[in-house]
Amino acid sequence: MSSLPINPPPRLLMGPGPINADPRVLRAMSAQLIGQYDPAMTDYMTETQALYRQVWATTNEATLLVDGTSRAGIEAAIVSLVKPGDRVLVPVFGRFGHLLVEIAERAGADVHTIETEWGQVFPVSVIANAIARVKPRLLAVVYGDTATTMNQPLDELGEICARHGALFYTDATASLGGNDFAMDAWGLDAATAGLQKCLSGPSGSAPISLSERAVAVIRGRTKVEAGIALETDEASPDVIRSNYFDLGQILDYWGPRRLNHHTEATSMLYGARECARIILAEGRQAVIDRHALAGLAMLAGVQGLGLQVFGDVTHKMNNVVAVEIPAGIDGDRARAALLADFGVEIGTSFGPLAGRVWRIGTMGYNARKDAVLTTLAALENVLRRGGVRAGTSGAGVDAALEVYEG
Amino acid sequence: MSSLPINPPPRLLMGPGPINADPRVLRAMSAQLIGQYDPAMTDYMTETQALYRQVWATTNEATLLVDGTSRAGIEAAIVSLVKPGDRVLVPVFGRFGHLLVEIAERAGADVHTIETEWGQVFPVSVIANAIARVKPRLLAVVYGDTATTMNQPLDELGEICARHGALFYTDATASLGGNDFAMDAWGLDAATAGLQKCLSGPSGSAPISLSERAVAVIRGRTKVEAGIALETDEASPDVIRSNYFDLGQILDYWGPRRLNHHTEATSMLYGARECARIILAEGRQAVIDRHALAGLAMLAGVQGLGLQVFGDVTHKMNNVVAVEIPAGIDGDRARAALLADFGVEIGTSFGPLAGRVWRIGTMGYNARKDAVLTTLAALENVLRRGGVRAGTSGAGVDAALEVYEG
Repeated sequence: MSSLPINPPPRLLMGPGPINADPRVLRAMSAQLIGQYDPAMTDYMTETQALYRQVWATTNEATLLVDGTSRAGIEAAIVSLVKPGDRVLVPVFGRFGHLLVEIAERAGADVHTIETEWGQVFPVSVIANAIARVKPRLLAVVYGDTATTMNQPLDELGEICARHGALFYTDATASLGGNDFAMDAWGLDAATAGLQKCLSGPSGSAPISLSERAVAVIRGRTKVEAGIALETDEASPDVIRSNYFDLGQILDYWGPRRLNHHTEATSMLYGARECARIILAEGRQAVIDRHALAGLAMLAGVQGLGLQVFGDVTHKMNNVVAVEIPAGIDGDRARAALLADFGVEIGTSFGPLAGRVWRIGTMGYNARKDAVLTTLAALENVLRRGGVRAGTSGAGVDAALEVYEG
Repeated sequence: MSSLPINPPPRLLMGPGPINADPRVLRAMSAQLIGQYDPAMTDYMTETQALYRQVWATTNEATLLVDGTSRAGIEAAIVSLVKPGDRVLVPVFGRFGHLLVEIAERAGADVHTIETEWGQVFPVSVIANAIARVKPRLLAVVYGDTATTMNQPLDELGEICARHGALFYTDATASLGGNDFAMDAWGLDAATAGLQKCLSGPSGSAPISLSERAVAVIRGRTKVEAGIALETDEASPDVIRSNYFDLGQILDYWGPRRLNHHTEATSMLYGARECARIILAEGRQAVIDRHALAGLAMLAGVQGLGLQVFGDVTHKMNNVVAVEIPAGIDGDRARAALLADFGVEIGTSFGPLAGRVWRIGTMGYNARKDAVLTTLAALENVLRRGGVRAGTSGAGVDAALEVYEG
């Protein structure tokens, strides 16, 4: 058994995430700890909230972090908003829609789904009709499903939900920071994410934002923990079925009452704060534009290599593309060669797409020209050595460079 | 709103945790990310499991990390082991016993408690009688409750639980690494911890270990996620009420099937691995002995300052002591002065002890002579300036040094 210090091999992570962290994020995380009620710490928490309000494009006071990976944020949102028996509608267009179903079912919800083929998104009218039919307490929809690379348009759904008295939640893990997102303008009540995609950080902290309407629902389910409750603290009969994911308690920890819940994951908070800070320093729209450009270049590049793109490209996320694995190539062997010989990682997918597509990401710190070109050059060589001739030599790199050159 | 990089003030964290991270842990966490299925990553996961088996003193194959703070580990253990309606017995001797009650209640358990005064622990016979009376499915007991500084003796409880067919779980967050602990010899079925106390890391990763008996219970509740399940994967009717804390799914992610659940929090894993590695490099027993020595020195020091120690000292954890705040001193103002003037942090407590005691820790990286002496020297000055004369000048430092000099 090894007992050497951590010393990971150098990798260029061009899969569907995690991707390489921005070095500034790792430097922030290497800062020494401070106490959870140190004024410097509570200031960092407050600053982090303000920074993420800009990232989410919201004025929601209730903008904070859940201490866990992106699905911790999802579960916190769903279990805090949904009581057992509440109807939840989930439009499923990929693996992460199934995940929302699974989490809502375990929260005791009465879950209704509509499904579309992987690689497609829903027309707004289909979701609108389902809302009218199901009359859900909550519409839970993935924004970008990395399993299929599709981004479901959300901009018209908030108004429809409001009209039908439904709360509107989205999981924006895979898209936040690299694609348009407008929490308030789209009428969202809850949204969650992770750091390991377009935010350029490590997995382990889940940014979340909640509208006043969502907060009111959660406040109606309040319970202060025994051991720290005052006599004036009364518990609701609809107590949330999780302590760790009780957003009411987490809000009391982040809010002026500063009631201890967990011990904030300080290093992850440092990292999450830095992720937001560097995005805003570059400019929120500039970062989205950088993702759009890198995504276009990678798309042109894989097409230049003669690869078939999977799914409805008009709804593709900026930050990831799926390509059909060419006939005659063992997809996993090719990925292993890319990793071993070039240090470049790309991904496959899940369920019906496992072994059928490769997913190639251009996200966060790696939404860069050099990362795109290096990946295409390496991939061309792996394809060539696997017996697939990709048209003219260098056609992938050339096509991507053309996008960059205008 | 600040948009400067993280730059926390220098602090000597001598409260009940978090404490300063060992610089080697922060260096490990600053390493660049790798993909979640990179062979280097899965090797790090496997090595981390092997390292924590030694920390826990167990041969349990199911030894791993839950991605969240220490209470994420607690909730994962309880919600995965306990079905709605199952009887759970919790002996409560401080705030964290109340937390186990709260988490078990939210999991739908039929919770029974016994209570003792804060500052005391239970005689084994009292717990044994309660087990015989309640016949719980699970005995859930805190090992060291930082709220009171007491360590409940656990060594005889495993045999009693086994005799009554109860599973035996402990929350060892506050004590693991700094106090005796013997997962297998004590007959534990489940134990969880966090990094931010005696393990010298940041909050945000929860080491957990499960006996074969516990794993069998969890395996009886298996469900593979839709979206990645095979047709041969059947779901149990007793599906765990949380996806994030479904230890069956987490075991499948860490185990040979490597089924994707969350995306492992890579930086936290690097940190958790380093926490265990440096403990084992120093020697597991040597680290406990260092905590015992620092704890004795701090105890002698605060007594040398004329402060009254809270609780049953014979059962005090090595790594934290509670002292009554002397009459005439505003406890919070004194703590603020310690922090502002000396950069030293100590804590108060919760519930009945809030504002009544200070808690002074000597844990993990800070279980060191210089940290003990610096804290005592600073505290003496804050007491003196607050109008409390602590006998002879330097009496706290001298008493602590006497312990160190043998």
